[in-house]
Formats: sequence, structure tokens, C-alpha cells
Amino acid sequence: MAWPRPEAPELQVARWLNTEAPITLASLRGRVVVLHAFQMLCPACVSHGLPQAKKTRQLFAAKDVVVIALHTVFEHRDVMTPAALEAFVGEYRLGFPIGIDAPSPDGGIPATMRAYQWQGTPSTVLVDRQGRLRLSHFGLIDDMSLGAAIGQLAAEDVPAHLIAQPSDDAPQSDPCDDNGCRT
Amino acid sequence: MAWPRPEAPELQVARWLNTEAPITLASLRGRVVVLHAFQMLCPACVSHGLPQAKKTRQLFAAKDVVVIALHTVFEHRDVMTPAALEAFVGEYRLGFPIGIDAPSPDGGIPATMRAYQWQGTPSTVLVDRQGRLRLSHFGLIDDMSLGAAIGQLAAEDVPAHLIAQPSDDAPQSDPCDDNGCRT
Amino acid sequence: MAWPRPEAPELQVARWLNTEAPITLASLRGRVVVLHAFQMLCPACVSHGLPQAKKTRQLFAAKDVVVIALHTVFEHRDVMTPAALEAFVGEYRLGFPIGIDAPSPDGGIPATMRAYQWQGTPSTVLVDRQGRLRLSHFGLIDDMSLGAAIGQLAAEDVPAHLIAQPSDDAPQSDPCDDNGCRT
Amino acid sequence: MAWPRPEAPELQVARWLNTEAPITLASLRGRVVVLHAFQMLCPACVSHGLPQAKKTRQLFAAKDVVVIALHTVFEHRDVMTPAALEAFVGEYRLGFPIGIDAPSPDGGIPATMRAYQWQGTPSTVLVDRQGRLRLSHFGLIDDMSLGAAIGQLAAEDVPAHLIAQPSDDAPQSDPCDDNGCRT
Repeated sequence: MAWPRPEAPELQVARWLNTEAPITLASLRGRVVVLHAFQMLCPACVSHGLPQAKKTRQLFAAKDVVVIALHTVFEHRDVMTPAALEAFVGEYRLGFPIGIDAPSPDGGIPATMRAYQWQGTPSTVLVDRQGRLRLSHFGLIDDMSLGAAIGQLAAEDVPAHLIAQPSDDAPQSDPCDDNGCRT
Repeated sequence: MAWPRPEAPELQVARWLNTEAPITLASLRGRVVVLHAFQMLCPACVSHGLPQAKKTRQLFAAKDVVVIALHTVFEHRDVMTPAALEAFVGEYRLGFPIGIDAPSPDGGIPATMRAYQWQGTPSTVLVDRQGRLRLSHFGLIDDMSLGAAIGQLAAEDVPAHLIAQPSDDAPQSDPCDDNGCRT
Repeated sequence: MAWPRPEAPELQVARWLNTEAPITLASLRGRVVVLHAFQMLCPACVSHGLPQAKKTRQLFAAKDVVVIALHTVFEHRDVMTPAALEAFVGEYRLGFPIGIDAPSPDGGIPATMRAYQWQGTPSTVLVDRQGRLRLSHFGLIDDMSLGAAIGQLAAEDVPAHLIAQPSDDAPQSDPCDDNGCRT
Repeated sequence: MAWPRPEAPELQVARWLNTEAPITLASLRGRVVVLHAFQMLCPACVSHGLPQAKKTRQLFAAKDVVVIALHTVFEHRDVMTPAALEAFVGEYRLGFPIGIDAPSPDGGIPATMRAYQWQGTPSTVLVDRQGRLRLSHFGLIDDMSLGAAIGQLAAEDVPAHLIAQPSDDAPQSDPCDDNGCRT
């Protein structure tokens, strides 16, 4: 593939759910990142995008593939609040890390959504092990296509300099589990 | 069928969406009423109950069968507000009348839900042409079963005294359409 | 409903599977009959019609509703043989009575199919308790619609003269069960 | 991955449908091969395996991934004949190459099925670009898992000596299309 592969824009998140500490794409170098942009009142996100994120989380090993969702509220801001999102996440038993996209000061499109130029929700992004943007898609993706794209990126070699060295003062544990990702 | 057929408890609704005027079961005598109790953050309501209500609304003639949904909030009251419900109803394009079950003064189970003793959401109620409670079911019902139950009630004769007489001063129009039911 | 309600044409069956004795519509007066016309190599019959027949069989009481399938072979006669149908019925675990529509002498449309003027498979027929043809539909029917139609017919009164009198010399048992219908 | 990667046993096929000439795994070196073993009267093959094969055929480029089905008849031999299979393939509009697994002389398990030791149908096999057996699975596989596995194998480099050189006397065309694979 010969098209340009820009670095994926960093996440701009006001608050995280399901994770102990903020997550950055930079901290996930060496792994494939699957990013699902959604809104809790978006029907296709609820019926398709988020169940697909759940399935992705279960299928791939966390050491290879990290699944993150991003609540990119660009409408109904008064009711899709952080408290409403928390209730939603509890009722739908979503276990992966969920970031609240940083609201725009002028009440428009939130920051990460603007950086990625998503046209709406659901949108799906794939970031490769080197941190490069490899897919940014608005709308539904069927399971086999998404599986194939992730499988392909997961099969790519990890550049040696991206492989994290265990630090001396702490045991190296899997940074992501059902409780989220630790950095 | 020989079991007792009590009159269906009247609806106690704080506010109606998708209808010009409040709806009472009493005003719907002569027709079968399908009542779907739901909460906007209840996954099975969103994936199954409300789509089934939509399908029911499309299948049966409004002169025979009326479909009503009831937002019976018994948890997450701070986020399942009337404003949030309005946004939800708009996003999911729900066209049938939706009542907000009258909240309990003590913050417990709302009034209609208490009267019907539903165990949770989704719950489905069928009221026959005579206003009697014929089904009150907590949980999912498959489409064929629900269709059969409604078809059976719709086939029952309408008692003559329940058939509304056209008034003199206005043309008798269908009281329910996609904009809701008029009383 | 005011349209003509002709008597349903009698079944013309070369051979029965899943039943001890031949079945006639005449012998089923007093009950609603659901008749599914299919071919074992018809994709929509296999994915939709026959599973729907199974579901119908499970939902309604055999004393009210009888489910029968009819193998109406009008193409690929050399491979959709009775032996092939038997293997198919075993693999798909179909438990209701299945008749093989009587082949035409000239190799054309089989006899019952011709009498009902079905355009192809799957086709669904409903016969009411009085033996009258109430629905004859080519193509798919969704579960709720079929449930509603059967529920409506099941709710109709059984004319007194159609109610079978128990004979003196044998206990009156349910004529249809998972092994088929006895006449 | 460190487990042994044996060469995939060669196909033993009595007859091919949907292809102009016999296909060998050897002739497909350089590409990933997805092999679906099925029987036309196996319900899970019809509802899941073959639709998945169709979807796989549409998703991946033929230059990277070849989809082949194999009719491995081990029961009901008298009715799952080549003629019956042809009718089935026509009705279900299967466009990919389908081989009839070579029958055993003693009427037992057919030859390829025995070589792969499949426990039944449906079974799915993945052969990598080097001709090695990478997956052999009895039963259903969900779409995302299969997509991931194929995507991973497709991402592996093609060894240079496996890349076919264009011959001088004919234009090099894609060996597989909707009409099958040419060797």
C-alpha cells in the first residue's frame, strides 16, 4: 500500500470511564488500536457499533489489540451528559475504556472528532502498531471486514524500538484488561 | 377462557409525547390497546420492545388496535428526564404516543407501573375492546406470540354499547395516526 | 370481511411423512389449518418458511391449529425425490406432517399446487375452522403478521355441527401431536 | 507462533463445479486458500457455512484469497448425488469453485475429509501462502474471527520463489473470478 500514512491525531479527552488513568495513543505504540466513536442516543451505535466493539475486545488479545470507545457528543448536549453516559455504560455493561471527547469551547464539534474529521457516529478508526492512521470510517462496518482489517494490522511486525522495556521498579503486567488500560 | 378478567387500571401519566391531548384507556373502549412499558436506558427495550411496538403499529389498523408506550422510570431518574426522553424519541423516530409514567412522590416505582405490578422493563400489556386486562407480561415476547394474542383480541366482537356514536358537530375521524391519538 | 370465502380445495397427496394415516382437510373441520408449500431446494423455504412452520407448530395448541407442509415439486424432479425429502426431513428435524403433492402426469405443476394456483414456493395457506380458504400467499410472511392472522381465525367460533362427537368405542385423543395427525 | 505447520494435504476431488479445470492446492501457492467442507443437507452448512463462504469471496481480492468449497458426503449418499448438488448450487447461486470429495471405495468417509480428519460438516480450513495448514476447524466460526484469521494470513509476505512468473505466450490474468479458478 502506497498511500500516505499520517500519524493518528492524539486523543483529546475530558474524562475517562472504565480506566484508572488517562490513555494516550502514544502510550499504546506497539499495539493496534481500535477506536469506536459513538453517541449514546445514536441508534446505529447502540445496535451495531458498541456490540461490535465488545466482540472485538473479546476476540483479540489485549497485548496485540486495544479497544477504546469515544463519546463524541455533537447534538443533544444537555441530555448526553457524563452522568447519563455513566448510567448508559452501566446498563449496557460496557467494560472497555470510554473517553468523553473534549467539548468545543463554542459548543460545536468536540476536539478529537474535529481532528479526525469524522462525519458523524458511529465512526471506526484503526491505528497500527506504529501509531499511524490506517482506517477512518463513518458508518457501519461488517464484522468480517473489520476482523480482516484488524487481523492484517495485528500481523505486521512491531518495530523493535517500539517494544516497551520492562522498568526495573515494577512488574510488567498487561496494561489493558476488562477494567480498562493502565498507562 | 375462564379466569377473572379485571378492568385494566387506568394510565397515570405526567406528560404525553407524540399526541395532542392526554390519552385514557377509558377513551379507547372498543379497540384493543397494546401497552409497552420501557425505559430509554433498558437494553432489551431498545433492541426488542420498541422495535416490536413500531412493527405492531404498522401491522394493525388504528381503528382496531392502538399502540402506546409508557416510560416507566424506576432507576437513573436524574438522567432519564423528560428532555432526555424527547431526544431519544426523536433519534429513534418513534411515532406512537408515549406517556411518562407519573413519578412516585417518594421517588420509588412510578404510579402506573405500581398499579400493574410490573416487575421491570420491558413489560407488555394487552387490553381488550371492553377495557379488560388480558395480558401483562414482563420480559421479551416473540413476534408470532404477540401477533397471535393481538389477532385473537382484535377478532372478538365489539359490544354494541362500546361503539362510539359520531357526534353531530364534527366529522368522525380516526382518533389515532402517526401523530398519536386524539380523544 | 365481505369477500367470497370459497371452500379450500382438498389436498391431493401422493405420500405422507410424519403421520400414520393420510390427512384430509375435510377431517380437520373445526380447527384452523396452516399449510406451508415448499421445495427442499428452495432457499427461502429452508431459511424462512419451514422454521416459521416449526414455530407455528410450537406456539398454537394442536386442538385449535394444525400445521401441515406440502412438498410441491415443480423443478429438479429428478433430485427432489421422496428419498431425498426423507433425508432432508430427518436432517432438519421436521416433526409436523408433510405431504408430497401428487405429481402431474405430464411432469408439470403438481395437483394441489395447481388447484391453489400458487405462483411458487414458499406459499402459505390458512384454512378456517369451517374449511374455508382465508389466506393464500406466495412469498415470505413476517412472524407477527402470520401470528395475527392465525390468532384471528383461532378466535372465531366453531360452528356446533363441526364439533366432532366422541365415539363410543374409543377414547377421544388429540388427533395431532409431534408424530403427526391421525384421522 | 511455534507450533508445527505441516503442508496442507492435497485435495482429492472426483469432479469440479464452477470451474473450467481441476484445482490443486499446489497451483494456488502464493495465495491464502479458504476451504469450506459441507454437505447440501447439513443445516448449519446451509444457514451459516456457505453464506460465510460467499461473503468471504466478496470481501477479499482473488489475487490474495481463494475460496473453495468441498462437498464431503459421508451420509445419505443415495440422495446427495452430483446431480442433486448441481441443482442445489444453482438454486443457492453459489459462484465459487466446488469440488466433490472423492468417494471412498468402501462407502465410508471420502478421501479429502479423511486426509484432514474432519469430524463432520461444516468444517473450515485455512492454508497460507506457502501451502501450510494454519486452521482446521469443525463447526461454526463467527465472521469476525474468520476475517481476522484470513486477514492475518493475507498480511504475511509471499516468499519470492512462490510468485508466479508471467509466461511469454499469454496475458497473465486473475486465475479466479466468479466463474471459478483457472490453473
